[in-house]
Amino acid sequence: MKKLLIASTSTIHGTGYLEYLLPTLTVFFADVKKLLFIPYARPSGISYDAYTKIAQKAFAKIHIEVVGIHEFDNPKEAVLNAEAIFTGGGNTFELVYQLYKNDVLATLKQVLENGTKYLGTSAGSNICGVSMKNTNDMPIVYPPSFTTLGLLPFNINAHYLDPLKNSKHMGETRETRIKEFHVFNETAVLGLREGSWLEVLGDSITLKGTETGRLFEKDKIAKELELGLLIIK
Amino acid sequence: MKKLLIASTSTIHGTGYLEYLLPTLTVFFADVKKLLFIPYARPSGISYDAYTKIAQKAFAKIHIEVVGIHEFDNPKEAVLNAEAIFTGGGNTFELVYQLYKNDVLATLKQVLENGTKYLGTSAGSNICGVSMKNTNDMPIVYPPSFTTLGLLPFNINAHYLDPLKNSKHMGETRETRIKEFHVFNETAVLGLREGSWLEVLGDSITLKGTETGRLFEKDKIAKELELGLLIIK
Repeated sequence: MKKLLIASTSTIHGTGYLEYLLPTLTVFFADVKKLLFIPYARPSGISYDAYTKIAQKAFAKIHIEVVGIHEFDNPKEAVLNAEAIFTGGGNTFELVYQLYKNDVLATLKQVLENGTKYLGTSAGSNICGVSMKNTNDMPIVYPPSFTTLGLLPFNINAHYLDPLKNSKHMGETRETRIKEFHVFNETAVLGLREGSWLEVLGDSITLKGTETGRLFEKDKIAKELELGLLIIK
Repeated sequence: MKKLLIASTSTIHGTGYLEYLLPTLTVFFADVKKLLFIPYARPSGISYDAYTKIAQKAFAKIHIEVVGIHEFDNPKEAVLNAEAIFTGGGNTFELVYQLYKNDVLATLKQVLENGTKYLGTSAGSNICGVSMKNTNDMPIVYPPSFTTLGLLPFNINAHYLDPLKNSKHMGETRETRIKEFHVFNETAVLGLREGSWLEVLGDSITLKGTETGRLFEKDKIAKELELGLLIIK
């Protein structure tokens, strides 16, 4: 049975890394001693070691040891043997590129479907959808595919941002971009605002945190989703 | 000899489509009677016909006829025979996907290097760079490659946006994204603000319009570029 936490962001403005999630993580990972960290997304190009240290520091507060997947000779075995897994944010293109390059995507999907507990933030959440086609990130590397874990029956748009009122900038809003997506794709998209996350337990998906979600479905008007159990398709 | 206008945006806030560029286009396309329009980027998923009508309406004001590439049985021949070419904005992933699918990318590069006059706006400007890796667009379709026309020795970031002061949103700024790009890539990136464009005449590249440019080079501090002749690498 799937046991996933899929968060819009690792960090809320003005607080420390994962700080707002620690009470939730304490309960969710209550039986976990050691966490496998996937640092492939490299926010701001930070090294795997430096990124893993940041995760270690946060999880030390709730007495969980963190080890980076790059420290293993065989990343696939590391995933297979992990007690629980955390994929941090950064660039989704680089993350997906490395998941394919290290041949761990299918294995990750397999263990998460079989019940290995998982935390994703930002890019680490985007990959839980059917594809990474709703990332906000810049395509700085070319991954062999946009297909991701498909643990959810929809896609995630992390850091979902409402249109800025009175903006004179002519670049597309997030909503416009997602509407363009639906000209070419059928998959529903959940805009997940900073401060909220999904708790997935088997087939049940619950929106938690402080912010409502915004659901985009092809040929339908976008709608706000209240906190609580979600029924999407 | 290359003759290109590469604009950040088609439209300035509060004005009509291409309106701010019309005085420039009148001079640049003075000898042009008919323009080939490439509507592949489909902003908001608009149809090729509807998009072409928008371009027709704008160019009618300066007495230039516009015909869409999709109206030709053989798009490659349409490019080869075009008097001048305009690629409009929209989604860069879809644009590049279609340029490859219709097998016109290499032909487009060839005719533009040989002197066919070209206007690009937004996505149509991004493709003038070495790659599309600095687009702001959402990866709604998977193109066979991120490699683009390489008419410039650098990449374009259209609709360049300075970091929003006092924002509490934790998504990356444009500058952060471009810095991440330089962890994995060597190519310089020019942030082109709305209201400005590049005029390329052979090897000479001039920044024109109302806004300075922002140049990002690997391992260097970003710098502002004044309007005028650019010397980049």
